[in-house]
Amino acid sequence: MKNPVRVCLVGAGRVARVHANSLLRHVPAGELVGIVDAVREVLNRAGDELGIDRRFETLETALDWGQFDAVVITTPTFTHCSLAVMAADRGKHVFLEKPMALNLAECDEIIRAAERNHVLLQIGFMRRFDPEFEAAYARIQAGEIGRPMMIKSLTNGPGLPPPWARDLVQSNGMLAEVNSHDWDCVRWLMSANPERVYVEVANLKGQALGVDTPHFYDNVLVSIRFEGGGLGSITGVCPCEYGYDARVEIVGERGLMQIGEAKGQAVVVCTDRDHGLVTPIYRTWGQRFAQGYIREMEAFLQCIQTGVIPRAGGMDGRWAVAGVLAGTRSFLEERPVYLSEVMGA
Amino acid sequence: MKNPVRVCLVGAGRVARVHANSLLRHVPAGELVGIVDAVREVLNRAGDELGIDRRFETLETALDWGQFDAVVITTPTFTHCSLAVMAADRGKHVFLEKPMALNLAECDEIIRAAERNHVLLQIGFMRRFDPEFEAAYARIQAGEIGRPMMIKSLTNGPGLPPPWARDLVQSNGMLAEVNSHDWDCVRWLMSANPERVYVEVANLKGQALGVDTPHFYDNVLVSIRFEGGGLGSITGVCPCEYGYDARVEIVGERGLMQIGEAKGQAVVVCTDRDHGLVTPIYRTWGQRFAQGYIREMEAFLQCIQTGVIPRAGGMDGRWAVAGVLAGTRSFLEERPVYLSEVMGA
Amino acid sequence: MKNPVRVCLVGAGRVARVHANSLLRHVPAGELVGIVDAVREVLNRAGDELGIDRRFETLETALDWGQFDAVVITTPTFTHCSLAVMAADRGKHVFLEKPMALNLAECDEIIRAAERNHVLLQIGFMRRFDPEFEAAYARIQAGEIGRPMMIKSLTNGPGLPPPWARDLVQSNGMLAEVNSHDWDCVRWLMSANPERVYVEVANLKGQALGVDTPHFYDNVLVSIRFEGGGLGSITGVCPCEYGYDARVEIVGERGLMQIGEAKGQAVVVCTDRDHGLVTPIYRTWGQRFAQGYIREMEAFLQCIQTGVIPRAGGMDGRWAVAGVLAGTRSFLEERPVYLSEVMGA
Amino acid sequence: MKNPVRVCLVGAGRVARVHANSLLRHVPAGELVGIVDAVREVLNRAGDELGIDRRFETLETALDWGQFDAVVITTPTFTHCSLAVMAADRGKHVFLEKPMALNLAECDEIIRAAERNHVLLQIGFMRRFDPEFEAAYARIQAGEIGRPMMIKSLTNGPGLPPPWARDLVQSNGMLAEVNSHDWDCVRWLMSANPERVYVEVANLKGQALGVDTPHFYDNVLVSIRFEGGGLGSITGVCPCEYGYDARVEIVGERGLMQIGEAKGQAVVVCTDRDHGLVTPIYRTWGQRFAQGYIREMEAFLQCIQTGVIPRAGGMDGRWAVAGVLAGTRSFLEERPVYLSEVMGA
Repeated sequence: MKNPVRVCLVGAGRVARVHANSLLRHVPAGELVGIVDAVREVLNRAGDELGIDRRFETLETALDWGQFDAVVITTPTFTHCSLAVMAADRGKHVFLEKPMALNLAECDEIIRAAERNHVLLQIGFMRRFDPEFEAAYARIQAGEIGRPMMIKSLTNGPGLPPPWARDLVQSNGMLAEVNSHDWDCVRWLMSANPERVYVEVANLKGQALGVDTPHFYDNVLVSIRFEGGGLGSITGVCPCEYGYDARVEIVGERGLMQIGEAKGQAVVVCTDRDHGLVTPIYRTWGQRFAQGYIREMEAFLQCIQTGVIPRAGGMDGRWAVAGVLAGTRSFLEERPVYLSEVMGA
Repeated sequence: MKNPVRVCLVGAGRVARVHANSLLRHVPAGELVGIVDAVREVLNRAGDELGIDRRFETLETALDWGQFDAVVITTPTFTHCSLAVMAADRGKHVFLEKPMALNLAECDEIIRAAERNHVLLQIGFMRRFDPEFEAAYARIQAGEIGRPMMIKSLTNGPGLPPPWARDLVQSNGMLAEVNSHDWDCVRWLMSANPERVYVEVANLKGQALGVDTPHFYDNVLVSIRFEGGGLGSITGVCPCEYGYDARVEIVGERGLMQIGEAKGQAVVVCTDRDHGLVTPIYRTWGQRFAQGYIREMEAFLQCIQTGVIPRAGGMDGRWAVAGVLAGTRSFLEERPVYLSEVMGA
Repeated sequence: MKNPVRVCLVGAGRVARVHANSLLRHVPAGELVGIVDAVREVLNRAGDELGIDRRFETLETALDWGQFDAVVITTPTFTHCSLAVMAADRGKHVFLEKPMALNLAECDEIIRAAERNHVLLQIGFMRRFDPEFEAAYARIQAGEIGRPMMIKSLTNGPGLPPPWARDLVQSNGMLAEVNSHDWDCVRWLMSANPERVYVEVANLKGQALGVDTPHFYDNVLVSIRFEGGGLGSITGVCPCEYGYDARVEIVGERGLMQIGEAKGQAVVVCTDRDHGLVTPIYRTWGQRFAQGYIREMEAFLQCIQTGVIPRAGGMDGRWAVAGVLAGTRSFLEERPVYLSEVMGA
Repeated sequence: MKNPVRVCLVGAGRVARVHANSLLRHVPAGELVGIVDAVREVLNRAGDELGIDRRFETLETALDWGQFDAVVITTPTFTHCSLAVMAADRGKHVFLEKPMALNLAECDEIIRAAERNHVLLQIGFMRRFDPEFEAAYARIQAGEIGRPMMIKSLTNGPGLPPPWARDLVQSNGMLAEVNSHDWDCVRWLMSANPERVYVEVANLKGQALGVDTPHFYDNVLVSIRFEGGGLGSITGVCPCEYGYDARVEIVGERGLMQIGEAKGQAVVVCTDRDHGLVTPIYRTWGQRFAQGYIREMEAFLQCIQTGVIPRAGGMDGRWAVAGVLAGTRSFLEERPVYLSEVMGA
């Protein structure tokens, strides 16, 4: 076996723990050697729980220590660019959670930093590594349903996002924080870039939840026309209360494909004929994409060990950000927006 | 269109109303012209509800009137033989609810009465007319799963049967009253007669339900060896509380087939992530086999109009009774019992 | 029982046969007494097959005979207004296939004709009478998933529509001919009128199929903002090759609801482990909505017998036409279109 | 983190590779340090593929080296007793594949060897560690479906077992080699020991496959009466051609529970309306119980690290062997057999 890749975790929140768990329990190819978080209390709690002794309040001090090969960045989106560039400039490979950045200029900065330092850059699009999505992609590529014509991707999630994650200025809102995966998946599965988008949003529960974020929305419906003529939709409802739900449906020239299901476990119970059959649902994204999270980390470490370019790279992250920006402009201006308007010529 | 077949309903209980509903609302080929029930109050309530003016307390008086072509007999099993023979002897076609009779001598009497009077005899095995079971049978016949090797049929039902229906002497008990359909279906789908059976029964809820019927059982598990070597099981749980559930699974030399599902309607609701997806179940046999009940009556009337022999005939009813008798002997004597033991050489 | 309602069928095409079959085989409350078709050969073939002796080449001659209570109009959309008004003016109740008409002026003419003649008008929105859709509607009304926020309705169908049915001038195209049911269902299930729509269309198979209809599209994606703030999408792919597929999914403030499934029959077969489980799909709209077609006719006849106003009436048909018109303008002008633009103040 | 447990693999066949893969790729708590196989060529191929340098042709020589804490024994059943006792006597913890042994005397020897040497003994009943089975067990224990009354467990597998695995003398045949898991699961899920069993077997494909093993059967149907009165069935079809299929269904006093499904992945494709929806099935036991295999190894290593007694221990293995022996006697003697007959007083 190769030597394990030494990894420093940047950020100690929920998704950080998912990656830490992968590294500690499921992916022998990686070794979690340090952790960074600006909040001392969060840092220590995470360090204690995960059994990591090397703890840093800034990425800078971690880099000064420097005994690692790669960073896994899970901090809020607005910090991504500076942290990713800083790590790349010190020669560290970068695994960067989605959304890649707040705007395309930041995306470009990150991509250039990785390139000039010859480090690898992978974006946290774990759905590409989920066994179902991966099998579906392979079968589409093999021509099983013919050329994809129409795709629908949905992500509904249970909890109200934190204030920064629903604010258009700090995070680009739900289109970015919840639906980044959909933006990536529809483009990946269609093998086509979006050409123009039209977005409707609605704020139906905000008032009851006491949300006063400007432009807040809890329901979003995206229409996409792809280059080459395919069509697609993305929908998101957050908070949706009922669970975590992520599914895709595609109609190709020769057939239908459904990826994923709301059902979370094959245990069905019926105890009341008025009620009927009850089947567990996925409760969280961590549960739904448990395999995807482990396998994206395995893939990243394997890329580092073998020098192969990651499958979910900087340009993929950039396209997802572009979709978010065009989509946001669409609902603000109430018109279809071409991707070229936000991406330039 | 041919003239409708004039039908007299004998018995006014639950399944009688199912057949009456078919004749009144769904099967223009039949006309419900009279009704018989020994209990004046039941008779009048049913007659009023169904809008039938000709009402009789005995089949004899109905036959004296005689303005009908066929009878649909839905009375308790122990009355089947005398009623069916009486109707046949007056030239009426006979639709006879399952179980056909209490013993094989009665079955033979009924079969002979139909033969000597040249009237048609159909047993109420509505599963053979359910679209799913019918399609499955056709696909097995077409060789889709190869020669059937192993079949499992289950019927679980929600309510405690009435005292006569759980008493071995009056009705042959649950094996007959609940599982007659399974006995018929496994033989029909396997295209093979049972050779020997072994039965285990359990009385697990009887005491709590205050049942003191001798030999009462609420769980039954039948093992069958078919002529030609195939194997099969029948299970029944009654009362099972959770709904009405009837499914079959077959393994053939070339594959698996599943017929039916517990799910009763394609409406799925999820409102609670701790709870999960909830799907309606079939609540009653009337609901599960709604199409089967209508279509078996259509088929019976069409046989009368065209002179074709019914698909679910006297010999099919007789085999189901034979299975019940062998099965009952098996659990009483705690040993495998050959069908030849109850059927004679 | 009430006297059967006497019905004259106007048009003898595919959906006409579905209604004829309901009247002849499944709905004793109606009697099919006459048939009209302008093409003598079609008329005679249908008349022979259905056993109807009274045959007319025009509705006028049928009305001159006049021995019926109601008409069931199944002719092409552009004929609906004149035929429906003519029948109403002669005092006949009108069952009118969807789409109701080509434009709102025609819808209004039909509605006024029914009103001034005191006849009933029902539009052929059979999904409202499908047991699954009906149960789903009742459960939404009962508050089971809370206020509906997001609805998605899809209809994919297997065959290329005839030239008139894909031409915007003659029929308003696929949005009308295939997706009328979706327009009605989303409004019905959301209990809200659409406020504005945005539509993307694509013509991806037309060239290969040799279609040269102007503005032809085989894929359509509709975004809807409802009054009150809910969102919705309608998609259609036609021809889709793989079968007939009509499903709805709704997220409410308290949960998810899925109505219908692609699966058409609960018979599952597996004969090859490379291939997997195979389940029948609905092949045609007649098969998918077999119950809905029967039950909408029962409901119409019952309204006539009891004087109750039909559930799927003229205003429902008018709203669906309005959606189609706004949607068509949207994709032609590449902008969101308010319903008020096509409906006037 | 604790020091990894050092493991020596005994046997280098198919299931050995599954465990090796768990240790190398998924379970950081274990370290695979040596491998034993009597066949030099098999040994070297496995050692090369898995990257294990320490290779032994006998367990004895491995024990002489001795630098490990535990053995994972995956050799044919008839070798289990001597190998397990030998390892235990040298102080090694023992993970032993199912079936535990050929007879109860061997089971007792193994259990006593583990006890006198104070080493842990775990039997390879991975279904107990499958997330679905584990959740189901917990929910039964919590009383969700009331007291279990009727259980059905099936295991169908695709390939013809090797000659030794279908020979009653060498292996106890399919009841042991294929259905050991079912024997364990029904007892575990029912929380009750079997009291008597009745078994039917059939040899339906043997001749076509050229099998001449005496008493060979490819279909088996077990009826079980449990202590306390519950009923159960086990069925096995092997080879079944269509895939690997393992499911359980339980009816309790208050409801139904279904565990597992034939479906192997949530990707559904439809490309042909004659054909319908196609869903992948599990192809192999390794695929079906991928999580179970990993988690049973994690659990075993954790027991070693913490000194906790394994959940699937020697007595569980012994009961499964007893079931097999009683079942075999049943079909040979064509009568129900009490477990007490094979277990002694």
